[in-house]
Amino acid sequence: MAHEYAAPDTVALDDENGTLVIIDQTKLPGRVEFLSLRKQEDIHRAIRSLQVRGAPAIGVAAAIGAYLAALDIDTADYGEFHARFASALEYLASSRPTAVNLFWALDRMGRIVRRNDNLPVETIKSLLRDEAASIRDEDIRVCRAIGEHALGLIKNVRGVLTYCNAGRLATVRYGTALAPIYIGKEKGYSFKVYSCETRPLLQGARLTAFELNDAGIDVTVVCDNMASRVMKNGWVQAVLVGCDRVAANGDVCNKIGTSGVAVMAHHYGIPFYVCAPTSTIDMRTPDGSGIIIEERPASEVTDMWYRERMTPSGASVYNPAFDVSDAELITAIITEYGVARAPYRENLAKIFETRGRIETDKMGG
Amino acid sequence: MAHEYAAPDTVALDDENGTLVIIDQTKLPGRVEFLSLRKQEDIHRAIRSLQVRGAPAIGVAAAIGAYLAALDIDTADYGEFHARFASALEYLASSRPTAVNLFWALDRMGRIVRRNDNLPVETIKSLLRDEAASIRDEDIRVCRAIGEHALGLIKNVRGVLTYCNAGRLATVRYGTALAPIYIGKEKGYSFKVYSCETRPLLQGARLTAFELNDAGIDVTVVCDNMASRVMKNGWVQAVLVGCDRVAANGDVCNKIGTSGVAVMAHHYGIPFYVCAPTSTIDMRTPDGSGIIIEERPASEVTDMWYRERMTPSGASVYNPAFDVSDAELITAIITEYGVARAPYRENLAKIFETRGRIETDKMGG
Repeated sequence: MAHEYAAPDTVALDDENGTLVIIDQTKLPGRVEFLSLRKQEDIHRAIRSLQVRGAPAIGVAAAIGAYLAALDIDTADYGEFHARFASALEYLASSRPTAVNLFWALDRMGRIVRRNDNLPVETIKSLLRDEAASIRDEDIRVCRAIGEHALGLIKNVRGVLTYCNAGRLATVRYGTALAPIYIGKEKGYSFKVYSCETRPLLQGARLTAFELNDAGIDVTVVCDNMASRVMKNGWVQAVLVGCDRVAANGDVCNKIGTSGVAVMAHHYGIPFYVCAPTSTIDMRTPDGSGIIIEERPASEVTDMWYRERMTPSGASVYNPAFDVSDAELITAIITEYGVARAPYRENLAKIFETRGRIETDKMGG
Repeated sequence: MAHEYAAPDTVALDDENGTLVIIDQTKLPGRVEFLSLRKQEDIHRAIRSLQVRGAPAIGVAAAIGAYLAALDIDTADYGEFHARFASALEYLASSRPTAVNLFWALDRMGRIVRRNDNLPVETIKSLLRDEAASIRDEDIRVCRAIGEHALGLIKNVRGVLTYCNAGRLATVRYGTALAPIYIGKEKGYSFKVYSCETRPLLQGARLTAFELNDAGIDVTVVCDNMASRVMKNGWVQAVLVGCDRVAANGDVCNKIGTSGVAVMAHHYGIPFYVCAPTSTIDMRTPDGSGIIIEERPASEVTDMWYRERMTPSGASVYNPAFDVSDAELITAIITEYGVARAPYRENLAKIFETRGRIETDKMGG
């Protein structure tokens, strides 16, 4: 594939130096800094502080982290190795509470050790390396497959609206919701992407805009409250989002604000596509009402933590000051002369008749 | 009225010192600073830089500004007075391009001078003072009347969602959309208000939250993308917004994002009320498509200009990290094993059957 997208992977193993290499996502888009981590405390902190984020990317980072933990266990005794590795897994698992992929990846690493108690420790370490590589490779394969399927649905589309970050920065490569954009670019399509900024943490303004702009894809940042106008303008023909969990009935749990975008897309007749690795589909949750919604600190809303320019300089911005709400959506218009309801042309005129009468009375009185 | 809300007016004439007194809205909620302005350049700058904002408040500030300009014209000659006053009006009118009330108020002041060319200049100045006072009094009366009408519609409501700032800070007193909240408080009602922060300039987080909290009203700030979840939670039974212009067919032009809130309210079956002084209803604009939407600088979106805490410390914050989009809103769920459409329970199960088959094939092969 000559045109395959060539940005560095979000999460990688540097085999030569024995380190986990990640892009520090808390610095984007102001600074592109790679971190090369070996110590378990540093890997733990990177996950906890969102230097690496996105459920799939966290899973891969944890798997590589577990392999590096194994490398540092200096013993040939299986019993000692097993015990020390188990406690390393436990430590990494404590980095974040909700991301399912974290536990799933660490569990896969633990199983390798348990299943191979008959092999020398050095061989087990090598199998752990292979397992981390598998987890990484599977993520790339899954994202690419989602991208191919999604591209089939948006082939005739010019403008796409996306929300939060479900791109390569949330996975190893490609992303989920952005995979069809990247794969489409390889194949000669050129989409125009609108990225909602995604308050309060600005994953859309900072991360989605950064990675698309970095890949040479036309991206325009809008505030979340501008999505309705972008849709009404006829600028997007599809919405693509990722997800955190899908219930068995198809209810989708994703970043706060996704449901509003879904309601608006429905209203404007724009297809709303959710890109979901099967690992995020939870057939044991019957519907969305069973999903507990995490509430985060108020300070995320009250104080702006990111003090640099919040979007990459190459990304466009659309900043309309007003929009228009169609009369059909308005229950009543309340004036100082009374309340008008639909049909408005008739009933607003009546309000002015009332006003005229009162003003005439005043002048006469 | 013993319980009438006692906050200082947003815009006032200090007759003793001959100054326009305003609350500096660019400093809120971090600092409550009153400005006492006499020089025309200072009044011009205050309007231009949004130290005073909100169409009705701008109109009153301009009227008072025009009166102060007249005071400073030191001549008893009508011709000279008229010419210098006309150029003062022109200067004030250049402070902002879109707010209709600005031109309307200055026009009223100009008419006083033109109509009374037979009177001594000192008498005209006194009539100008009366006209500015009338404009101010009318604003208070109109807002109070809107509040009474609106209160009649939300008497049985507990939670109200509002957007941007259509409160006392946008008028002299009461506001439009917030008038029923204040008048309701006088009458013993206690509403719980959700204020959308209103990106990019945060009028909801900074101004609406400030003035409601200041008046002892229960207010919770949410990011704009949280409105859908607040509605779905069943926390609000009415939406109240102001407006910049209403077309003859009832289409409403208001702060960017209002249309999205209208779509969501419609979807969740929540009444969406627009509070509109008749001065904002434009029967000569047939529908919303004829309203030109101002586009503002990208820097408002890319850089956070307000560097202090963005909400008053007394206001609550609701900060959910995720929300749930109902299956009925989702066009398709795209997985690595193919695309599922409604009915999802059946078709997601088929995806897992496909996955099982492929995995079995792999293990067999």
